[in-house]
Amino acid sequence: REPLALIAGPCQIESADHALSIAAVLAPACAAAGVQFIFKASFDKANRSSLKGRRGVGLEAGLAALAEVKAAFGCPVLTDIHTEAQAEAAAGVVDILQIPAFLCRQTDLLLAAGRTGAVVNVKKGQFLAPWDMEHVADKVASTGNDRILLTERGVSFGYNTLVADMRALPIMARTGWPVIMDATHAVQQPGGLGGASGGQREFAPVLARAAVSLGVAGVFIETHEAPDTAPSDGPNMIPLAQMPALIESLAAFDRLAKADPLHV
Amino acid sequence: REPLALIAGPCQIESADHALSIAAVLAPACAAAGVQFIFKASFDKANRSSLKGRRGVGLEAGLAALAEVKAAFGCPVLTDIHTEAQAEAAAGVVDILQIPAFLCRQTDLLLAAGRTGAVVNVKKGQFLAPWDMEHVADKVASTGNDRILLTERGVSFGYNTLVADMRALPIMARTGWPVIMDATHAVQQPGGLGGASGGQREFAPVLARAAVSLGVAGVFIETHEAPDTAPSDGPNMIPLAQMPALIESLAAFDRLAKADPLHV
Amino acid sequence: REPLALIAGPCQIESADHALSIAAVLAPACAAAGVQFIFKASFDKANRSSLKGRRGVGLEAGLAALAEVKAAFGCPVLTDIHTEAQAEAAAGVVDILQIPAFLCRQTDLLLAAGRTGAVVNVKKGQFLAPWDMEHVADKVASTGNDRILLTERGVSFGYNTLVADMRALPIMARTGWPVIMDATHAVQQPGGLGGASGGQREFAPVLARAAVSLGVAGVFIETHEAPDTAPSDGPNMIPLAQMPALIESLAAFDRLAKADPLHV
Amino acid sequence: REPLALIAGPCQIESADHALSIAAVLAPACAAAGVQFIFKASFDKANRSSLKGRRGVGLEAGLAALAEVKAAFGCPVLTDIHTEAQAEAAAGVVDILQIPAFLCRQTDLLLAAGRTGAVVNVKKGQFLAPWDMEHVADKVASTGNDRILLTERGVSFGYNTLVADMRALPIMARTGWPVIMDATHAVQQPGGLGGASGGQREFAPVLARAAVSLGVAGVFIETHEAPDTAPSDGPNMIPLAQMPALIESLAAFDRLAKADPLHV
Repeated sequence: REPLALIAGPCQIESADHALSIAAVLAPACAAAGVQFIFKASFDKANRSSLKGRRGVGLEAGLAALAEVKAAFGCPVLTDIHTEAQAEAAAGVVDILQIPAFLCRQTDLLLAAGRTGAVVNVKKGQFLAPWDMEHVADKVASTGNDRILLTERGVSFGYNTLVADMRALPIMARTGWPVIMDATHAVQQPGGLGGASGGQREFAPVLARAAVSLGVAGVFIETHEAPDTAPSDGPNMIPLAQMPALIESLAAFDRLAKADPLHV
Repeated sequence: REPLALIAGPCQIESADHALSIAAVLAPACAAAGVQFIFKASFDKANRSSLKGRRGVGLEAGLAALAEVKAAFGCPVLTDIHTEAQAEAAAGVVDILQIPAFLCRQTDLLLAAGRTGAVVNVKKGQFLAPWDMEHVADKVASTGNDRILLTERGVSFGYNTLVADMRALPIMARTGWPVIMDATHAVQQPGGLGGASGGQREFAPVLARAAVSLGVAGVFIETHEAPDTAPSDGPNMIPLAQMPALIESLAAFDRLAKADPLHV
Repeated sequence: REPLALIAGPCQIESADHALSIAAVLAPACAAAGVQFIFKASFDKANRSSLKGRRGVGLEAGLAALAEVKAAFGCPVLTDIHTEAQAEAAAGVVDILQIPAFLCRQTDLLLAAGRTGAVVNVKKGQFLAPWDMEHVADKVASTGNDRILLTERGVSFGYNTLVADMRALPIMARTGWPVIMDATHAVQQPGGLGGASGGQREFAPVLARAAVSLGVAGVFIETHEAPDTAPSDGPNMIPLAQMPALIESLAAFDRLAKADPLHV
Repeated sequence: REPLALIAGPCQIESADHALSIAAVLAPACAAAGVQFIFKASFDKANRSSLKGRRGVGLEAGLAALAEVKAAFGCPVLTDIHTEAQAEAAAGVVDILQIPAFLCRQTDLLLAAGRTGAVVNVKKGQFLAPWDMEHVADKVASTGNDRILLTERGVSFGYNTLVADMRALPIMARTGWPVIMDATHAVQQPGGLGGASGGQREFAPVLARAAVSLGVAGVFIETHEAPDTAPSDGPNMIPLAQMPALIESLAAFDRLAKADPLHV
């Protein structure tokens, strides 16, 4: 069993310098804790709650920034794509293509991502049961791609609320693909602020720790030096200054969990 | 207040002849009942539960079949699109472009649909609250398009189950856009058959009648002459032979509802 | 098929005079509309959200008030009980014993109610599926009592929210027992005001009409001349002044529904 | 911060000998792991899904058996009560009175339990939000009793399913009362077997470990030497033979969690 991976970064690529400044905190903290670091950031927020939300720097500038992070820190980088056309271009730079939760059933997007040969991380839709993800992964695998990650990010629970069902983690692990817990999106309150999503960032470390204790392959956490002024997902991102201690704490639970695996 | 509209047809366009044979039952039944008939069918099922599900005849053959139905019966036709590129082509034939529920937050798709000038029917995501749809409609309206329909098709309720919240209908109506009840998708059991969705077609007339009694602008019902052998959505489609009586019944509730509007 | 029954009254018995003044509005409105009137009020609110909520006048004073209403208007009366000991006493006065939703699985209470020979109306727990109520009704029926009513009052949907699943009405009707829609409790927001429950009274007529259109045996509605100052359930009660028009409207939908029964 | 407490035992008291045989496994396993052991068993299952379910040995025999366990092992014992009348009698023997989830809002029962001076463990209703439990605890505390425990046992999530929201644990802990995770009831599938509840016992250790990692005061687990033939709750009880290893594992996560407390 591999030690914990951390997929982390700001929600949006704001600039290359901004991305580098975040990675500069996360990379050494992960190294110190024995955690594998994967940098994550989005070039386009294609499904904002309302038109007023900022979308991002776009594909070209975003990939350039991600390439800089990769070169500077030697870490894998991840970004999410929204159309088939973006798959090939993004895979030229990033190590992991991520399929957003709302798009996790779009067959052509899954196939396009799979065909690039990049690792494909599929977020489970808020409308799916964990056992439904087997068929989603099969779509990617049908392209011959066998580097697939499945990510839990909460399931719809009434209106404007998600709940993270811990059973989903071992259930998805039965597919054989590594399972990631997205701790910051699972505490979103979709649409909870009217024209924008709210969030409960105080619970992200709660969900991260619970998942790590169950032996997940990785944790996904969005972070920002000043979440309250971030262009998106501020209410659920964890302040960057808190990340080193959180990473160290999660690493300790990971070691215990990996030494004492659950058999479900 | 306009009389009830019925958006109905088979889940998939199987062939032009098949589409025509279904419209040939629905059109006269609607005319007899004083219901406006809109023919609906999909040229591509882009988000099947698994790769094994049949996708459809494709854009070109699909639009040709819809054009035949429109010419033969003089009724408006509706189809759903999945990419921006499909918007313009589809709007060359159909009167109403439909945005699938999973895609209802994809900004670029909503804008592309809006820009065509066609009527845009947006299905509410299974992960959205009814009040969230105001911001979705605003994306379409930002293009200058003021012919928007909002459709309820159920909201996630635990795993593999949807529930149709009747409050959603008057809440969405507060936006001022006409509201449609999708009675057959709201009784889907997503992923309920493992690699395919199940359904409870016996409850579709229940939800249709309840919604019509509340004064909705229209009802959306998928139907097939032999649902159990249909290539998709069989478990929730209503047998075509039952449609004329159902249309007549709904029209009677519609007349009573429109004469006695609820003030919510 | 019998015409619609209306179970209505204030949440609490505040005094005999208060109860009489409410019945004095409801009874003639029901008579005018051809609706059977059953007066409902509680002598004890045994499960308030917090200790600060007013409990009620108690068993003795409550039953005396109900007896006055029954004598004055000749209508059946209903009250809810919370302990086995209350069953016999209450059944000496009221026609219908009601089992509260939270207590709908308490075997001894169901048996005690059944043994009185009174009609027993069991509210479906917010935590139960509609098909679970068959076993609940069987407990009452095991006493030889075959006068059972089953009432839908919403099911838990995330936190502090209920949803009324219209499918529940025909599903419970398959038991053969008459089904009632509790339109005012189904719009409660349990605990939604912190130490008290909130509510959305504007949606109670929505749910009542939808249910009546489906052919339910009866509708349950709490009402008060000044809901905002009522000692309990104010946010979800319908103002008394609106009841005559609502009753007349529901009666029209009931006649149409009973003439055109759904076969589910 | 106290080390972990384990509340464990069979769902029902089947006989004094049976109770003793279970405690004889659990007590030494807890002692070896540094976990405080509290024996739990019920004398009456008062809210079975159907009349066919076995109810139990009754108050008198049950209390006698619990007294034997207490004498033999020197451990605190817990049982659940269903009526006010049972509070005083049970408190003569047991250390902890438990209020069942369905009854957690019944004011008189909470007050009767509080007045005995025994520790009162209130299970959160499947229909309540975690923040609603503050008002429930206040009812008990109003009696002057300041020994209160709050237990999470899952919340309704669609039909016949519960979900354990890990956020509920720190939210309830804000009240200042110790929080317990009931890992075996949270994996129940209420009514999932038709006339009985199903369960997913394989996930009980998952939920127990996740909760312990978050630093809960205790874990509640039902266990039986042969769950599949137990008179109640078999599908969700953990086989007794697996308990010693589970206890040891949970103790290791508890030590790590208590040394690194989350600040929520």
